[in-house]
Amino acid sequence: MTRPPQRATAFAPASASNLAVGFDILGHPAGPTGDRVTVTRRGEPGIVITGVTGVAGPLPMDPAANTATVGLLRMLDEVRPGFGLEVSIEKGIPLGSGTGGSAASAVAGIVAANALLPEPLEPAALFRYALMGEAVASGAVHGDNVAPCLFGGLVLVRSAEPMDVVTLPVPATLRCAMARPHQRLDTRAARQVLPSAYPLHDVIRQTANLAGVVAGCCTGDLALVGRSLRDVLIEPHRAALIPGFYEVKEAAMKAGALGCSISGAGPSLFAWCDGDAIADAVCDAMVAAFAACGVASDGWTCAVGGPGARVEEVS
Amino acid sequence: MTRPPQRATAFAPASASNLAVGFDILGHPAGPTGDRVTVTRRGEPGIVITGVTGVAGPLPMDPAANTATVGLLRMLDEVRPGFGLEVSIEKGIPLGSGTGGSAASAVAGIVAANALLPEPLEPAALFRYALMGEAVASGAVHGDNVAPCLFGGLVLVRSAEPMDVVTLPVPATLRCAMARPHQRLDTRAARQVLPSAYPLHDVIRQTANLAGVVAGCCTGDLALVGRSLRDVLIEPHRAALIPGFYEVKEAAMKAGALGCSISGAGPSLFAWCDGDAIADAVCDAMVAAFAACGVASDGWTCAVGGPGARVEEVS
Repeated sequence: MTRPPQRATAFAPASASNLAVGFDILGHPAGPTGDRVTVTRRGEPGIVITGVTGVAGPLPMDPAANTATVGLLRMLDEVRPGFGLEVSIEKGIPLGSGTGGSAASAVAGIVAANALLPEPLEPAALFRYALMGEAVASGAVHGDNVAPCLFGGLVLVRSAEPMDVVTLPVPATLRCAMARPHQRLDTRAARQVLPSAYPLHDVIRQTANLAGVVAGCCTGDLALVGRSLRDVLIEPHRAALIPGFYEVKEAAMKAGALGCSISGAGPSLFAWCDGDAIADAVCDAMVAAFAACGVASDGWTCAVGGPGARVEEVS
Repeated sequence: MTRPPQRATAFAPASASNLAVGFDILGHPAGPTGDRVTVTRRGEPGIVITGVTGVAGPLPMDPAANTATVGLLRMLDEVRPGFGLEVSIEKGIPLGSGTGGSAASAVAGIVAANALLPEPLEPAALFRYALMGEAVASGAVHGDNVAPCLFGGLVLVRSAEPMDVVTLPVPATLRCAMARPHQRLDTRAARQVLPSAYPLHDVIRQTANLAGVVAGCCTGDLALVGRSLRDVLIEPHRAALIPGFYEVKEAAMKAGALGCSISGAGPSLFAWCDGDAIADAVCDAMVAAFAACGVASDGWTCAVGGPGARVEEVS
């Protein structure tokens, strides 16, 4: 009889969500940065957080308050595998950056723990546990970071509970340029600036653009995507929270982006581009524009349909 | 030198719009019924309506107030072809039925007149003139009846002004069942029951469903279309205006429809179905359910990506 695995490490990528037209429903991975979680079997039940390293500031060491472990607690409670977990978290994604850091920690923890279970869980179960961690951080249950982080690809979260996640086709040349200011914007604060209700006229324009983006991605019509990647509903309310927003967006568009808006709740911005060369130029332009506004930032480019979380090591 | 054409007749089909998830932005033809307009050159400038026949009640004989001629007046004013028009209208679509009667009259008039012009107009110009007629009837500029009626196909009106009309792929087996009660519902009245603003939570659900329907049509995933063809935004407010709505919808779903909701502003209902056999059964079930509620109705089935307006005769 072989000894069951004692320790597993999983990596989960950053992600860009909302994507201008898909508030709470659209997202895609935005690596290469991400969070890494290592879980180790312990004889006693329950969870102990043994360490938090990386780019994040102080994080709760109470497993019931940490996004990486809230879902894990529930998983152990429901699955009852007969062991507890020591959890070590390596944050590669800054908190409050709008690039899915809470989702990545939650996903990495669940995916790592899943590798220690005698019978791996179904995708829907992994999704549900990871959502619990995300909800702690954002104050709302929405899967548009968890789903792309967990499954990869450009995803539509038609429903988070019950899970209905649809992977959308991605045009071959579509790329994403990201710019992440060295500032923190609390997701809950970014939610509080949103009106509770939206005029029908704006809803119609937003839905028309959403349909254009989805149809453009499905049919490979990047011109349609470019005409449609415009946020009339959410961006106008959140832009003021992001120093340099309009300057950076203008710089991205001038450099050839198909569209540019807020990644997640911000302050990071994303820009979709046709091809690597334009994505590189747009990325440089965005970082330069942030700098011109006195804001330091990191920039990088990535695929729109990239891979999700992966188990890196089991021993 | 050949004599220029003196008379032209055009036919424009009924249409189903809104389609549960695409208020003011989605529509498709819903023939075989439609309106027919004959235009005849006259030496004097301006327009004279010489007759209105068919299923409609009394219609304005003033060309500035009739949906079939408002756009024509503007066309003559801008194009200045050197002649006026006698216009005869044969209504096949009852007014206030929710199946695009105003749009069909406007489109048929424009398409017929276009056949008499020395140089035919661009599609965008035809669309713009036809929209003017539609606006007279509905009190709002929205192209989700005019576009499918004019161009055919399942169309997304990303923007009416300027025109950005996208033809969406239609799954091969997708069919539509229609049921039109013998009752009239004024489009303006149906607009007045709509709230001016919508909660973010409902907007998120509606957009998730819209994205599902568009993606499902583009990728041929009718199961996704079926899960997504649900209106949480508009239908709840308008259902009360349609006697028998919930009974007819339930009957359609029990008979196997992918989804069922209000066609246009109602009171007609549409139901999307997978295949002819189910569409026939759904159609029968809808008409029977209306009858059980004491409401007489016509039922028919049609393609979702059927043809738009056509010139029938030029002489």
